[in-house]
Amino acid sequence: MNESKRRFLRRSVGVLASGLAAGGVRSAGAVEPPEIPPSMKIPGAGMGEYGSPAKYESKVTRTLIRSQPGTTGSGASRTPLESLEGTITPSGLHFERHHSGVPDIDPAQHRLLVHGMVKRPLVFGVDALLRYPMVSRIHFLECSGNSQLLYQPTPPNVTAGQTHGLVSCSEWTGVPLRVLLEEAGVDRSARWILAEGADAAAMSRSIPMAKAMDDAILALFQNGERLRPENGYPVRLFLPGWEGNMSVKWLRRLKVVSAPVMTKDETSRYTDLQGDGKSLMFTYPMEVKSVITRPSHGMTLPGPGLHQISGIAWSGNGTIKKVDVSTDGGRTWAAAPLVAPVLPRALTRFRLPWRWDGAAAVLKSRATDDTGAVQPERDRFVAEHGNNAIFHFNGIQAWSVAAGGEVKHVYA
Amino acid sequence: MNESKRRFLRRSVGVLASGLAAGGVRSAGAVEPPEIPPSMKIPGAGMGEYGSPAKYESKVTRTLIRSQPGTTGSGASRTPLESLEGTITPSGLHFERHHSGVPDIDPAQHRLLVHGMVKRPLVFGVDALLRYPMVSRIHFLECSGNSQLLYQPTPPNVTAGQTHGLVSCSEWTGVPLRVLLEEAGVDRSARWILAEGADAAAMSRSIPMAKAMDDAILALFQNGERLRPENGYPVRLFLPGWEGNMSVKWLRRLKVVSAPVMTKDETSRYTDLQGDGKSLMFTYPMEVKSVITRPSHGMTLPGPGLHQISGIAWSGNGTIKKVDVSTDGGRTWAAAPLVAPVLPRALTRFRLPWRWDGAAAVLKSRATDDTGAVQPERDRFVAEHGNNAIFHFNGIQAWSVAAGGEVKHVYA
Repeated sequence: MNESKRRFLRRSVGVLASGLAAGGVRSAGAVEPPEIPPSMKIPGAGMGEYGSPAKYESKVTRTLIRSQPGTTGSGASRTPLESLEGTITPSGLHFERHHSGVPDIDPAQHRLLVHGMVKRPLVFGVDALLRYPMVSRIHFLECSGNSQLLYQPTPPNVTAGQTHGLVSCSEWTGVPLRVLLEEAGVDRSARWILAEGADAAAMSRSIPMAKAMDDAILALFQNGERLRPENGYPVRLFLPGWEGNMSVKWLRRLKVVSAPVMTKDETSRYTDLQGDGKSLMFTYPMEVKSVITRPSHGMTLPGPGLHQISGIAWSGNGTIKKVDVSTDGGRTWAAAPLVAPVLPRALTRFRLPWRWDGAAAVLKSRATDDTGAVQPERDRFVAEHGNNAIFHFNGIQAWSVAAGGEVKHVYA
Repeated sequence: MNESKRRFLRRSVGVLASGLAAGGVRSAGAVEPPEIPPSMKIPGAGMGEYGSPAKYESKVTRTLIRSQPGTTGSGASRTPLESLEGTITPSGLHFERHHSGVPDIDPAQHRLLVHGMVKRPLVFGVDALLRYPMVSRIHFLECSGNSQLLYQPTPPNVTAGQTHGLVSCSEWTGVPLRVLLEEAGVDRSARWILAEGADAAAMSRSIPMAKAMDDAILALFQNGERLRPENGYPVRLFLPGWEGNMSVKWLRRLKVVSAPVMTKDETSRYTDLQGDGKSLMFTYPMEVKSVITRPSHGMTLPGPGLHQISGIAWSGNGTIKKVDVSTDGGRTWAAAPLVAPVLPRALTRFRLPWRWDGAAAVLKSRATDDTGAVQPERDRFVAEHGNNAIFHFNGIQAWSVAAGGEVKHVYA
């Protein structure tokens, strides 16, 4: 624990002690040892080969939203951000976005082709990829359509996860793409790479060569174990900080080319319609953003006194530098301590103790990254971008707290 | 990516290109686009509320070892280290060690009592704990009995996970214990705390006050979601770097006392019998240690050429400073790059490209932490501690590679 964190803890302990004395979260009842619980009277359950969450947490699930009625696997599922803490998303709750479902791929049969403008076209099996030098990095992944409900003129009546849950964060391990490209020998005039997935949608995007040679990974592991099927098993492209669909899952082909290929996925889809009727193409990095996950819509504060405000911030352009929190709808702000280590292009947890006096309040968070970019107020964002779009929303999120403690989504 | 990492990558790419040219891991066959796979011809599966690993990874499980025949839940299960990469252990594969199984605890009924030498005894429900300020930290947890098979006079014929898999690493989130102790008001003369679990073994340990006030956490979340049942749901003590059994699971009681309580779990168990017949008590921090996870016992290298040596290192006393790797049984050593961020009391991944010439070899790794402690050779460790013990083994692990590529456990 570093010194600034210690100082914060000391400070928050001070707040806490008085908060508790004044309103108390501890039991007002007897302090005799609680009765011996049933769990101490009978042997517990045996061990398991692969564990699962407690049955009491069975409501903590991804929210399934199918975008195409009648299809089996076109749509998305969202991470229940309001139930999570810290920065790592358990792989079972990592958001999903599929264009024709999750393919069943036998890793022994899977092949990855590197071809096009290269000296030596190459074909790799998964076992071959596993012999290469690897890197591990903790990064968020965000669907460009995350928070699209906030383009609507009225606040959506759903949880933080249901609006913002197309973002998750994992430790990704794999082979730097550059290593394979250098082995193949990329032509000097090549500028782009077509990446194609082995799903029935043949998900395809054009990747600028500079990104491919910088920090792109062929990811094989997620949070320690091999990729989950819904995250591209057995191998996916991973482009840190860029909109999720670019990190092509179930990767089968990388074709080195001189110009963007203009695939269906970058012309008919994943372009950003602006207020003036024009569309932006190739908008890669996800902008600086944050959301308070607790308290958030659907929760009820049990009473005045001390509460913790907790949330996540991230930026596809770099590292989170600061998160300001307001409890009065944006009139005043306080910087929230960030949980170390603060990593580039990773979810960053911020927390602030809050003594709620029981009056109506409006909570907001506002993130700043190390490029100086500041998360805009929703009004300003919509004024600038219009509300025809569904992609790249990064406006400030507001939650109202009523005198009774009910927390609701609000535009403020 | 920092500059030293970039330099390493450049260097390893150099090794790689020549390694590949000389022996090749890429397919020697045709480089035509692979045939359109079946996965592209039919829609994939739908989304899921809570995901699972790919069916092709069904053999990647914890290894169950019951120590007490006839009981339902006394024993351990080990993390399959040889199948994992990076530093985070997926919660489903986190090792287990139970003394009377996994209790079924309804969080709505669970109570935590803080009593003894305090001004204000307190009882907390889980909902109350969730209102307190929290911290998140990535830390390993290691059972003090990890690697106990290596006390045996002959090398065990089992995998890296089966010898070393009582260590795992997670992001733990919870309330600093100090916060609750300060609220309760600890007497000046109090020096210890009895921690008791709500399992049928009433697992109980005496915790020095200094540790409780330093970095101890009441953990509520593991890798983002609420604790798994086998890891102490709904709340466990977590003592960074200390032997696992001290981090009492299913925590129900903290009694502030003046001296260690001498519970059954610290007298009849968890004492370290030395060669001279004496036993060490209260040996808390887990010593500096490392193991190469790939290649490791049971694997067969597919042939000469480039391979990656990958492993984990950790120290309960601080931060890993250096990991040296040998491929000639310890005659010569090379420092392996460490994966950033290198965090205190966390698993640290090291990797080194290795061009195997096809001759017999012996692989070793040797970790050094920032206190200057160096992992000892097994011979020296056993000479010093004897081999009656089962706890706190941290000797250097050796794997032999035969000319045919078979990797085996060896004492060397």
